[in-house]
Amino acid sequence: MTLLIRDAISSDTPTILRFIRALAEYEKLSHMVVADEATLKQSLFGDNAKAHALIAEWDGVPVGFAVYFYNFSTFIGKPGIYIEDVFVDPAMRGKGIGKAFFAHIASRAKAEGCERVEWAVLDWNQPAIDFYKSIGAELLDDWIVNRLSGAALEKMGEKRRAA
Amino acid sequence: MTLLIRDAISSDTPTILRFIRALAEYEKLSHMVVADEATLKQSLFGDNAKAHALIAEWDGVPVGFAVYFYNFSTFIGKPGIYIEDVFVDPAMRGKGIGKAFFAHIASRAKAEGCERVEWAVLDWNQPAIDFYKSIGAELLDDWIVNRLSGAALEKMGEKRRAA
Repeated sequence: MTLLIRDAISSDTPTILRFIRALAEYEKLSHMVVADEATLKQSLFGDNAKAHALIAEWDGVPVGFAVYFYNFSTFIGKPGIYIEDVFVDPAMRGKGIGKAFFAHIASRAKAEGCERVEWAVLDWNQPAIDFYKSIGAELLDDWIVNRLSGAALEKMGEKRRAA
Repeated sequence: MTLLIRDAISSDTPTILRFIRALAEYEKLSHMVVADEATLKQSLFGDNAKAHALIAEWDGVPVGFAVYFYNFSTFIGKPGIYIEDVFVDPAMRGKGIGKAFFAHIASRAKAEGCERVEWAVLDWNQPAIDFYKSIGAELLDDWIVNRLSGAALEKMGEKRRAA
């Protein structure tokens, strides 16, 4: 049994999309998945790609993925890594694959001079929260994320003053 | 009275650092500011800069700043904009400068094909929360951000398997 975490390549796009859909189902958010192969390929592997994907292979078979991008701390003055998603095929859980993703990304962060790795968890996902605490993560539960999208984003953009 | 929101340039670095320190004081987080001019200049204006700054000028005088970077939604398959900080000089509040930053960034997001603008707020900052709700933001209060840093990040990075 061999586990390999590697950078994703363009031909992994259909696999990544399949994992994204499986992740959304687990999070009870399937209705929010609108990504398609062309969009995803452009965003992860096109010119000016701002997000990066990793694939976990177990004996050569993809069994999970992670997507991350670089965030920034003004207080530190440096970028950090933000993990948007980590997903492991439910049939392959309990083998340390999720932990291997976090270790891989933590190692990359240190190599690139990033002093933080961050990610979000749904507040009802206690098994995940317990795991994150076990690896030493601090839960920033006094911060709330705000999102502007759809008509509200459109309306706000129209208020921009001429410069 | 003229308000201008513009992209920051390298020579704005001392001004941005001054604003970062003032923001930290307001958030009761001054002890967390370790950024210095050299680090900040490299991160915002150097090669491979991953974060971007805006300056608000009132009659030609800098009165606030914002810093943002690109995040990513796997469900949408596209990047979005994440606003790390918005700060307006306390003496200049109530003039619509904060709102002008959000409008500027919302307009940029739409122009660049981003379907979301996101940011975080401290849960005790009710005036900010009220403002964000007034512009149509959705509060994602079922998500908790996790942070791995310092010794815990170091330790996790050392667990990376040879690939």
